Amino acid sequence: MSTVSTVTVPARPADQGVTAPAGFRATGVTAGLKASGRPDLALVVNDGPLQVAAGVFTSNRVVAAPVVWSRQAVTDGIASAVVLNSGGANACTGPEGFADTHRTAEHVANALAVSAGDVLVCSTGLIGERLPMDLLLAGADAAAAGLSADGGPDAAVAIMTTDTVAKSVSVQRDGWSVGGMAKGAGMLAPGLATMLVVLTTDAVVTAAHADRALRAATRSTFDRVDSDGCMSTNDTVLLLASGASGVEVAPDDLAGAVTEVCTRLARLLVGDAEGASHDIAVTVHRATSEDAAVAVARAVTRSNLFKAAVFGNDPNWGRVLAAAGTVPEQVAPFDPALLDVSINGVQVCRAGGVGEPRELVDLAAAREVRVEIDLHAGTSTATVWTNDLTHDYVHENSAYST
Amino acid sequence: MSTVSTVTVPARPADQGVTAPAGFRATGVTAGLKASGRPDLALVVNDGPLQVAAGVFTSNRVVAAPVVWSRQAVTDGIASAVVLNSGGANACTGPEGFADTHRTAEHVANALAVSAGDVLVCSTGLIGERLPMDLLLAGADAAAAGLSADGGPDAAVAIMTTDTVAKSVSVQRDGWSVGGMAKGAGMLAPGLATMLVVLTTDAVVTAAHADRALRAATRSTFDRVDSDGCMSTNDTVLLLASGASGVEVAPDDLAGAVTEVCTRLARLLVGDAEGASHDIAVTVHRATSEDAAVAVARAVTRSNLFKAAVFGNDPNWGRVLAAAGTVPEQVAPFDPALLDVSINGVQVCRAGGVGEPRELVDLAAAREVRVEIDLHAGTSTATVWTNDLTHDYVHENSAYST
Repeated sequence: MSTVSTVTVPARPADQGVTAPAGFRATGVTAGLKASGRPDLALVVNDGPLQVAAGVFTSNRVVAAPVVWSRQAVTDGIASAVVLNSGGANACTGPEGFADTHRTAEHVANALAVSAGDVLVCSTGLIGERLPMDLLLAGADAAAAGLSADGGPDAAVAIMTTDTVAKSVSVQRDGWSVGGMAKGAGMLAPGLATMLVVLTTDAVVTAAHADRALRAATRSTFDRVDSDGCMSTNDTVLLLASGASGVEVAPDDLAGAVTEVCTRLARLLVGDAEGASHDIAVTVHRATSEDAAVAVARAVTRSNLFKAAVFGNDPNWGRVLAAAGTVPEQVAPFDPALLDVSINGVQVCRAGGVGEPRELVDLAAAREVRVEIDLHAGTSTATVWTNDLTHDYVHENSAYST
Repeated sequence: MSTVSTVTVPARPADQGVTAPAGFRATGVTAGLKASGRPDLALVVNDGPLQVAAGVFTSNRVVAAPVVWSRQAVTDGIASAVVLNSGGANACTGPEGFADTHRTAEHVANALAVSAGDVLVCSTGLIGERLPMDLLLAGADAAAAGLSADGGPDAAVAIMTTDTVAKSVSVQRDGWSVGGMAKGAGMLAPGLATMLVVLTTDAVVTAAHADRALRAATRSTFDRVDSDGCMSTNDTVLLLASGASGVEVAPDDLAGAVTEVCTRLARLLVGDAEGASHDIAVTVHRATSEDAAVAVARAVTRSNLFKAAVFGNDPNWGRVLAAAGTVPEQVAPFDPALLDVSINGVQVCRAGGVGEPRELVDLAAAREVRVEIDLHAGTSTATVWTNDLTHDYVHENSAYST
């Protein structure tokens, strides 16, 4: 940290994360946005030679000022830096909130001697409150002064809200790498208000390939993590490429490495979801299409009834079937009388009726729960991740803003 | 009760409910399906002269055996009786489960000397378990022997599952009336597994008018009660008309009275939802259509985040906006920057941003919470009801089957 803090500082992640690839510096500081006095402002800078960037944003129609800004700023495929704050979402703050984001970008741009239009901004925290701009801008100055080639772990700490661990991962390829950090989870543990992810690579790639790799990766990872069906106003996933490795990377190789990093970050998010006691993977087999498989899996991961049953260590396959049955036939054709459901390997439902005894399933023994649904309708498979619905979820999300 | 019980018997409702209109007899007995020893089997008989019937059923593709049976049996617009059991849903029980339902209808038909195809069947309870048919059929005999012209309140008690009060209402018109009873709530408190409603009238009406009145009434009442977005495999709403008043009733008058009964029953269901501490009415104003208003209201009533905030007495309007923003623009056109949100009369959000201080809203003071969203897009209005997400909801739904 570049600012002295009197509170307990969360453990720095072991992985370098966003500073694992060459060409990046980062840091995390305490600007004073959080009442807790914990680090709350992160800066990631791409020193090039390339300044390629791509972004994927929340599909919510109500979006925070930083999303409006960054979505526009990244359309040219170029970015030099990302500044991220926890302690306030800057959402539903009107034209003044947008001006705050704009001012943040300009301030950081001045400090780094780059163009404001090349500075992306992310915010997370409570909706409907202005940010304390004096604190934030002073923090941005401290961050710019404290940038370091091994600052990735500090940046990952500074974007935490109710996360219990900082999340940094990276993968090495032949002469190049991809790194990333994440906080929260938009649809996963949204008392946090938001999932923010910054990915970096030193591969030599075009903006078009970066964009394609990022969209493919998020579609099969973060988009399939769905804790409570809620969707943040601030969700943002960014990919920056420095080209510093000098290695030209084929589009498929880039997409593969980015997907691997996103997969690992998504699993960390599920494992750290607010108040959860189980991670639940719902896999739908033999669907007529991948979209159909996702639709059925998502219906199950959004069933409060099923999620509460898992919290009670109850392998309640009836609630799985009831959730699957809510998916319209035109979305996912299947015959309810053919459905099989296995929970942690025990086929508790066979052909739409009673299968193996539910007592054979021991949900109390492990955090991970595997639900497998065989639609007997086609050849496609997909998995969606969620968590159980617990007392702690209700507690954290009923007490978050008060 | 026609059967002696050694356990505490729930209070009989004051209203006659299904036996308020002339031409109906009913009763509730203890067949022994429930471990608690409480009444668990109800019978409602239409003594005519008309035997008009209409039904509305769950739209879930996974439906219980009694829904398959009753949906078919009511298509001719004729029914003589309804037999309802709590203590088991008879869902996901395969061909054997359907045979159980069929046998129940035949048994009751024999006891009443009517056709089996004119006996409707409803079940509620756990999914995936066969019913104890010996107990059930003996209970049906006891019920047939105990029918009474003032048995409506007993029938309402016998269909309760985790309901804390029996629900019977009726409305009087000029020489005719409509009565009804309800239990549980499909989407409302679905640890119960199901919402079951039986409505009766002594009006002289055709089957076509009964069907139209029932569909119109459910569309604006039960369909707009949505506690947790879950949809039961057993939800059933039935309307029986005896014609015993001799009064020919115009279609609109019938629809009005049926809607009034359904409105009152729906409010009772919301007020008795499992583990809830607040009833929440979300009203959307100035939408481009009624469907658009319902879509936005439903998105808010399905937000676990907002519902948990209400449990915490937090008027978290940011979560209202975030939920509204998930509705696709083609479903509900509106400009997020124009949205106003009032909670219990305090306009906490104005033009998509901060309005009156949230501290002015006191959610701790009352059970009822009124959320009003002004879309500034059209002229249509709709209200959807839900409950807050509480520790007790998680507790009841994690412990229900274990």
